Amino acid sequence: MIKVGIVGGTGYTGVELLRLLAAHPAVELTVITSRGEKGVKVSQLFPNLRGRVELAFVEPDDSVLKGCDVVFFATPNGTAMKSVAMLLEAGVKVIDLAADFRLQKADDWEQWYGMPHACPELLAEAVYGLPEVNRDAIRKARLVANPGCYPTAVQLGFLPLLEAEAVNPRSLIADAKSGVSGAGRKAEVGILLCEAGDNFKAYNVLGHRHWPEIRQGLMAVVDGPVDLVFVPHLTPMIRGIHATLYATLTDPDADVQALFERRYATEPFVDVLPPKSHPETRGVRGANQCRLAVHRPQNGKTVVVLSVIDNLVKGAAGQAIQNMNLMFGLPEVTGLEGIALLP
Amino acid sequence: MIKVGIVGGTGYTGVELLRLLAAHPAVELTVITSRGEKGVKVSQLFPNLRGRVELAFVEPDDSVLKGCDVVFFATPNGTAMKSVAMLLEAGVKVIDLAADFRLQKADDWEQWYGMPHACPELLAEAVYGLPEVNRDAIRKARLVANPGCYPTAVQLGFLPLLEAEAVNPRSLIADAKSGVSGAGRKAEVGILLCEAGDNFKAYNVLGHRHWPEIRQGLMAVVDGPVDLVFVPHLTPMIRGIHATLYATLTDPDADVQALFERRYATEPFVDVLPPKSHPETRGVRGANQCRLAVHRPQNGKTVVVLSVIDNLVKGAAGQAIQNMNLMFGLPEVTGLEGIALLP
Amino acid sequence: MIKVGIVGGTGYTGVELLRLLAAHPAVELTVITSRGEKGVKVSQLFPNLRGRVELAFVEPDDSVLKGCDVVFFATPNGTAMKSVAMLLEAGVKVIDLAADFRLQKADDWEQWYGMPHACPELLAEAVYGLPEVNRDAIRKARLVANPGCYPTAVQLGFLPLLEAEAVNPRSLIADAKSGVSGAGRKAEVGILLCEAGDNFKAYNVLGHRHWPEIRQGLMAVVDGPVDLVFVPHLTPMIRGIHATLYATLTDPDADVQALFERRYATEPFVDVLPPKSHPETRGVRGANQCRLAVHRPQNGKTVVVLSVIDNLVKGAAGQAIQNMNLMFGLPEVTGLEGIALLP
Amino acid sequence: MIKVGIVGGTGYTGVELLRLLAAHPAVELTVITSRGEKGVKVSQLFPNLRGRVELAFVEPDDSVLKGCDVVFFATPNGTAMKSVAMLLEAGVKVIDLAADFRLQKADDWEQWYGMPHACPELLAEAVYGLPEVNRDAIRKARLVANPGCYPTAVQLGFLPLLEAEAVNPRSLIADAKSGVSGAGRKAEVGILLCEAGDNFKAYNVLGHRHWPEIRQGLMAVVDGPVDLVFVPHLTPMIRGIHATLYATLTDPDADVQALFERRYATEPFVDVLPPKSHPETRGVRGANQCRLAVHRPQNGKTVVVLSVIDNLVKGAAGQAIQNMNLMFGLPEVTGLEGIALLP
Repeated sequence: MIKVGIVGGTGYTGVELLRLLAAHPAVELTVITSRGEKGVKVSQLFPNLRGRVELAFVEPDDSVLKGCDVVFFATPNGTAMKSVAMLLEAGVKVIDLAADFRLQKADDWEQWYGMPHACPELLAEAVYGLPEVNRDAIRKARLVANPGCYPTAVQLGFLPLLEAEAVNPRSLIADAKSGVSGAGRKAEVGILLCEAGDNFKAYNVLGHRHWPEIRQGLMAVVDGPVDLVFVPHLTPMIRGIHATLYATLTDPDADVQALFERRYATEPFVDVLPPKSHPETRGVRGANQCRLAVHRPQNGKTVVVLSVIDNLVKGAAGQAIQNMNLMFGLPEVTGLEGIALLP
Repeated sequence: MIKVGIVGGTGYTGVELLRLLAAHPAVELTVITSRGEKGVKVSQLFPNLRGRVELAFVEPDDSVLKGCDVVFFATPNGTAMKSVAMLLEAGVKVIDLAADFRLQKADDWEQWYGMPHACPELLAEAVYGLPEVNRDAIRKARLVANPGCYPTAVQLGFLPLLEAEAVNPRSLIADAKSGVSGAGRKAEVGILLCEAGDNFKAYNVLGHRHWPEIRQGLMAVVDGPVDLVFVPHLTPMIRGIHATLYATLTDPDADVQALFERRYATEPFVDVLPPKSHPETRGVRGANQCRLAVHRPQNGKTVVVLSVIDNLVKGAAGQAIQNMNLMFGLPEVTGLEGIALLP
Repeated sequence: MIKVGIVGGTGYTGVELLRLLAAHPAVELTVITSRGEKGVKVSQLFPNLRGRVELAFVEPDDSVLKGCDVVFFATPNGTAMKSVAMLLEAGVKVIDLAADFRLQKADDWEQWYGMPHACPELLAEAVYGLPEVNRDAIRKARLVANPGCYPTAVQLGFLPLLEAEAVNPRSLIADAKSGVSGAGRKAEVGILLCEAGDNFKAYNVLGHRHWPEIRQGLMAVVDGPVDLVFVPHLTPMIRGIHATLYATLTDPDADVQALFERRYATEPFVDVLPPKSHPETRGVRGANQCRLAVHRPQNGKTVVVLSVIDNLVKGAAGQAIQNMNLMFGLPEVTGLEGIALLP
Repeated sequence: MIKVGIVGGTGYTGVELLRLLAAHPAVELTVITSRGEKGVKVSQLFPNLRGRVELAFVEPDDSVLKGCDVVFFATPNGTAMKSVAMLLEAGVKVIDLAADFRLQKADDWEQWYGMPHACPELLAEAVYGLPEVNRDAIRKARLVANPGCYPTAVQLGFLPLLEAEAVNPRSLIADAKSGVSGAGRKAEVGILLCEAGDNFKAYNVLGHRHWPEIRQGLMAVVDGPVDLVFVPHLTPMIRGIHATLYATLTDPDADVQALFERRYATEPFVDVLPPKSHPETRGVRGANQCRLAVHRPQNGKTVVVLSVIDNLVKGAAGQAIQNMNLMFGLPEVTGLEGIALLP
C-alpha cells in the first residue's frame, strides 16, 4: 500500500482528494495536516466522508510526512515550495496541486505570484503533470507540478491542432467558464451564493495566473511564440469548466475531427465526441475525464474546440492521482473509474 | 453474475440504476428497454455513461426479459403490474421502483393512482422493500415494491419513536422538501429551471400519493391508527430530500438520542448524527444513505427529527440495489459504498 | 421631501433600501454611512444602482444624521441602540432594521443577543413595526423596531387563527425555509455558493433569535402562553421565505378560509389566495407582499398555513419603508407598488 | 393613453411585457390573446401579476386587435407575419418580438426559419428595432422588428469598433452565454432544472438563427463583408446574457475606451464601464440596460468587449417598449427606469 500524506486539505481539492483516495485500492491514507483545523475530524468539515474517512487533521510535522511514500500539497500557493526539498531528500515523492512548480522560470513565477520562489533550483526537476503530454517523465518524477484547472482544459483542447501545425499559433483565443468551486473554499464575499448565484461575469481579463501556464505549455509544443488571449468567466454552478477555444486554420482542408480522434485514441481520460457534438460539464461531474468536441462553423477559417472537465477531478485531485499512479507504476486508471453523477 | 434487465430507464431513476449497476461487481447488465428510445444508446441520453455502458435501448420483449435473473421496473406507475405475473412465472425476480405494489389494498391503490390494478392478487406477496423494516422478508421475496423517496425518509425518521411508543401516533407531522429530480425527467413547464429555480413552494398539501404509503408503514408499526399530516415542498436543487418530522412525546423523560442510536446501530445505510447536529442533503449526494438527527427544542413536548437522503439513491435506485443484494444473498452493501459527492 | 439617512447599508437590506428609496417619490436620499467603505460609491458595491444612486458611503457623523428627518439602521445587531437616544432627542425618527428594539424585555434581549442593552429605557417606547398589527401606534412612533424576516412571515400566518381563537396556542409549529440572503452579505464559508448551493439543511433547531420575537408577538395576541416550535432551514435560492405553519384547530367547523380573507380584506400588502392554492416565493420576489394560503389536509384537526414573503422586502427593507410612510402620513403604499420579478 | 394589445403572451417575454406595461404611465392594457389559455387570468399563469393585472387571455380576434393603437406579438416565429398586414391596414402599429421581420431578405428567412414567409413585401418596410442604430426610422415606423436577445448584446458591443473602423470585420468572434429563460417557457426536457441546472454547454455551434441577424446588422455598418463566428452557450441561471466579443485591431494605437464612451455618451440604456471593469448580468437583472466594458489583454492586437443585458428586458420586452415609446413620441425612457434587482 502507498502511504499517502496530504498537506492542507481543508479546501475543495482536499475533500476531493480524500473522496478519491479513500476508495483507491492501493492507497493507505496516513496523515492529513492543517494548522487551522488541527484536532478536527475531516468528516466534521466534510460530511460526505462521515463513516468513510476516520482521519483527523494534525499540525504539520516533518517527521510524520517523511514516513509517507508520497505527499500531496493541497495548500495555497507558496506553501509547498518551503517543504519540498526536505521531503525529496527523505525519499518522499511530492505532488503539488498548487502552482509553486508549474512555471519553469522563477522570474515568471515571482511576477505572477507576487513573492520570491523558495527553491528555484527545483523548478528544472519538477515535471508538469499533464500525462497526455509528459507521461514518461511523470513515471520517473520525484516532484510533479499538478496543472491548473483551466490549463488542463485549454491545453488538451489546443494540443492536437498545434502538434499537427493545423492552426496559426499567433491566433489563439480561450474563452473559459468555471464553476465557483474553482475559486476555492474561502470566506470571500464574491463567491457567496447571493453574489455568484444567478449571475455571470468575466474576471481578470487583463491577466490571470493561468495565462502564463497555458502559454508555456503551448509554446513547448510549437517550439516558438504563441499569442493567446485567455478570458476566464465565473458561471453559477459548483463544479465544471467549459473552455471554448478558437484558432485560425492554416490548412483549409484539414480534417480536424480525425486529428483529434487520432491524438487521443489511446488516452484513458480524454474522450473525443463525434462530429456536431456539444459536451456538457455535468457529463463529467465527479469523473476524471476531459471531453472534447471540434467544430468548424460555416466551414470557415476558424476552428472551435469545446473542452469540458470537472475542475476538481481532471482539473485537480483526479489528475493528481493519475500522476501518482504513474509515479508508482500502477495502472493509470486505478481508483479513477468512478462514473460521473448525473443529474 | 446476476443478469439484470431494466424496463423503462429513460428517467432519473433509470440513469441512477445504470450508474450504480455498471459498477456493481456481481451484475451483468443484460437488457434495457424503452419503446420511445429504442435503438438509442443509453450513453447518448445520459452522457455520464459514455464509455462505461454500451447498452442501447430495445423494444420491450418478454422472451429477453425472461432470460434475466432480476428485472427492475423504472417505469411510470401502472406499467410493471402488467408484466410481473409473467416474469415471476418464468422464475425472474422483480423489483418495482414505481408504486404498483406499494399499497397493500387494491382499493387504496385504485383510489390514489386513478386506475384499476392489473394484478391485485400479487399485492399480498409483494414485499415492501425497506430493508430496515423488512430485511428477512426481502431476502425471500420474488417481488419487491421499492419504497417511494418521501416514504423512505419519513418512515426511517419516525420508526424509532413509534416502535418505542415514545410519541403519540395521532400527532405526526412530516414537512418534507424535495429536490426537483423527484418530479422525474418529464417535459413539464413546472419543473423548468426558470420555474423551479430560485423558488420555493409547497404542493399537493391536500393529498399526495406518498401519504397513504407512509401511513400504511407507520400503522404497521403501531398496530393502530396514525394521524399524519404530510406537506411536500419543491426546493431548487437537483437531488436530495430533507424531511423535518414533528411528534408529541408521550414520555417527557425519553432519551430520544439513545433510542435512535440503538435502533440503527447495525444498519449499514442509516447514520444517526450526534446530538445538536443538522444533516445536509449534499452530505449524502450520490450515496445510499439516510442521515438522521433528533432534537427537542426548548426541552418541550415536541420531538423534531431531521432526515436526509438522496432521493435517487436511498430514495430509489440505491435502495433497489440494496434489495437486490438481499434477494440474491450478496453482502447488503455490495456496489453501494460510493462516497457522496461534495461540493 | 423626507430627508433620509442610512446607517450601515453595505449589506443586502442596505442595497434593497437604496433600490426602493431611490424610486420613492417623497424621499431625498441624504446620507449613507459605513466605516469600512467610506469614500466608496454605493454603485461600486452594488452595480444595480449605477446611474441611479450617486451617493458615496461616508464615515458616521452625528451632525449629518441629525439633519435627517428619518434614519434607517441597516447595521449589525447592537449598533443602533448606541445612537438612537441622540437622534430621537434631535427630533429625528428612527427605523431599526436590526433586532435592537424588537424584544420588549431587556433581559430577554441580553440572553438571546449576548450583550447588555445600551438603552433599555427606550424599549417601552419602541413600536414593533408590523403594520398589520400596530398600524396606529406606528403612525405616532418616533422609534420603530422593524420585524425580522421569519417573524413577519410566521406572525402574519398565525394571526388570523389566534385572534379568532380558532386554534390551540399550545400547539404551534413553524417550519420555515429561507433563501440565503437572509444570512446577510458576510464573508462566511457556510453561505458560499459551493456550500449552500444544491443543498438543503435545517439550522439552529435548538434555538434561533427569531423564536422569542415571534413568540412575544403571538403571546400579545392570545394574552396568554404560547407553545411554539420554530425550525428554520436554509434553501438554495437567493431571496424568499416560505413558512409552513401547523396548528391544532379548537373548532372543527371553523371556516378558516373566510377567517383569513376577512382578517386581511383591507390590507394592501397581505394577499390571501383562494382555497387549494400554493403560494410561491418567486411570486413576491422584489415585491412588498405577504401571500398566504390555508389548508386542512384530510379535513383533520390540523390547519396548515403557507406564508411567503421576500425576506429583503416585506421581511426587511420594504416593510421599513411601509413603516416610514405611516410615520410621515404618506399613503402606505407609496413607493412600494413595484411588481415582482418573474421568472 | 396608448391602447395596447398583446398577441401570445404566455411565455417569458409575455409576462415581462405585462410587468413593464402594467407600470407604464401612458399605456392602457386592452387585450391579451392566447388560444391555449383563453379564459385564464394572466395572474393565474404568472403569480407576480396577481392584484396588478386583471386581464384574462382571450381568443385572438381581429376586430378587438384593430381597436388597439399598437399590438405586440410575443408569439412563436411565423405567427405575426400572418396578421401584420391586416393590422397595419387598420392603422394599428405593430412590434414583433419574434423573428418574422428581422431578416431583410425573404430567402434568408426561409432558409433559417424553415418555412415560407407569409408577407415578404413587408420586409422592406419593417424597421429593425435597435434604437441605438435606427432611432429615427423607428420613430416613423408602423412595423418594428424587435431584435433578438443575442443580437442586441453582440451588436451593441461590436458597433463602436466597426463604425470607427478600428477592427478588421473579417475577424469577429462572439462567445455568448445565455440564461435559460432565453429558451422560452416550453415543456422541453433540455431546459428542466435537472438538465440545465449545475451544467454548462455550448449549443448550435454550427449554426444559430441569430447568426444571420447579427451579421446583417454588422454588414450594414461596415458596408461590406463580415466574418463572424458566433458560439452560444447555456448557463445555469434564469435571466441574463453575457457576450464576450473578440476582434483584431487594425490600429494598434486606437483608444478603444474613448471610442465606446463617445459612441454611447447620450444613450439612455447603454452604459460604458470604466477601464478594467467586468460587468455582471445581475447588475442589469430586470432593467432595460446594456452594460459594456472593453479590454485589450497584454496590450495585444485583440480587443475584448464584455456586453451584458437582461435577455428579457433590453433583449426583448424592455427594448420593445423603448421602441413603442419612440413610435408614439413619448420620452424614450418612459416606464423603463426600474432599477435592477440585486441580489
